[in-house]
Amino acid sequence: MFSYLITGAGRGLGLELTKQLRQRPPSEVSAIFATIRGTPSETLQELVVEAQGRIVIVHLVVTEKEGIAAAVDQVKEKLDGRGLDVLINNAVITETSPDGAVSMGALRETLQVNVEAGHEVTVAFLALLREGREKKVLNLSSSVGSIALARLYAVAPHPAYKISKAALNNLTAQYALELEKDGFTFVVVSPGWLKTDMGGEYAQLDVSVGASAVLDVIARDGKELRFRDSTQSKSSSTYLT
Amino acid sequence: MFSYLITGAGRGLGLELTKQLRQRPPSEVSAIFATIRGTPSETLQELVVEAQGRIVIVHLVVTEKEGIAAAVDQVKEKLDGRGLDVLINNAVITETSPDGAVSMGALRETLQVNVEAGHEVTVAFLALLREGREKKVLNLSSSVGSIALARLYAVAPHPAYKISKAALNNLTAQYALELEKDGFTFVVVSPGWLKTDMGGEYAQLDVSVGASAVLDVIARDGKELRFRDSTQSKSSSTYLT
Repeated sequence: MFSYLITGAGRGLGLELTKQLRQRPPSEVSAIFATIRGTPSETLQELVVEAQGRIVIVHLVVTEKEGIAAAVDQVKEKLDGRGLDVLINNAVITETSPDGAVSMGALRETLQVNVEAGHEVTVAFLALLREGREKKVLNLSSSVGSIALARLYAVAPHPAYKISKAALNNLTAQYALELEKDGFTFVVVSPGWLKTDMGGEYAQLDVSVGASAVLDVIARDGKELRFRDSTQSKSSSTYLT
Repeated sequence: MFSYLITGAGRGLGLELTKQLRQRPPSEVSAIFATIRGTPSETLQELVVEAQGRIVIVHLVVTEKEGIAAAVDQVKEKLDGRGLDVLINNAVITETSPDGAVSMGALRETLQVNVEAGHEVTVAFLALLREGREKKVLNLSSSVGSIALARLYAVAPHPAYKISKAALNNLTAQYALELEKDGFTFVVVSPGWLKTDMGGEYAQLDVSVGASAVLDVIARDGKELRFRDSTQSKSSSTYLT
């Protein structure tokens, strides 16, 4: 029975991950900390009621350091001496720059949410993760962060998002290499282009497909997932480093 | 006779690039705009005197938008109706995090200088570059930004710098793809580990070797340098995208 914390669980992939983890037996998933930045949707509220205590809503704006510290305290109290097993950094923003990188206005904000905040959240939860039995941190990334695939994705008008994902991929590599000696597994996963508010209605995959693929990656043995000196995978539903 | 603008030309690689360009005949290099953030060193002052008007010092703090606009005005006036041919985004910072990514304090600042500022400077000079005959933009990067090579460089305690370079590499790819139709060539270059204030005394190469290699890359035909769908080069003295 493992505990999970998912940031950005208010909607989209984060909400779906929360749903799918909730469907697993308590012997497998003991607690799901679902962080949201606003008020919980009806769907999430219903989920929480059904889950009978297994889902805990945590208010968290990932760019606010003090808020992160308060979230850690809340999670720590709830875990009551146990560690946190899996952290899923899923909260991201994207921008649309119809005229491309030259017109990109949201680069700073995108880097702050998609790169810096993930770093701050990870650092803040590290002590609890060290006490966990899984020591897995999953950073939600995207194939569009791949430089090798840049031409393939040139048509997607989200340059700041792409740049932030390249940075996140390297950030994750740094953590992966640094903390492997302590038994940690850090991975980036590209869940595919999903039909969410962010992905839009023309996306390729239902959000349930993406969430299920992400949970499959988490279920793999940590050693199998650890950093390899390979070039980025070209598959959109597997980890990139 | 081409005109060049080099940011961060006060010392290190930027100063050496200025020196080497100055040694070329005026028929090849007509003007060198050397941007610096502080007061010019004696070396740079001597260079300016020797260059008899070919080197123009421009005061520029790359993170200050208003200052960038003023620098553009200054360069534009000096070019007197001609375009700017080559922009070299060389101004960068690095940080040292002896305990690795988990102790990284300067991520935001590093991303601001190494990624966002390069973007802002490029956007600001784009109109002048469009009037130029070379339309080349060189972003100084580093092999340590490569995710594929992360384990090789794990020992270097500069995680924020590495992360910023991955972001810069993707940023450059976005620009390269977007503006190739307009005849632009955007490249990243890793000049090697150079004996500068930043690289330190144990670095592999003299700064003159790195500067010379960078100028060799610029001298190549634009088409040869344009974005290719390849994985990152493993050579430290060639372009990465």
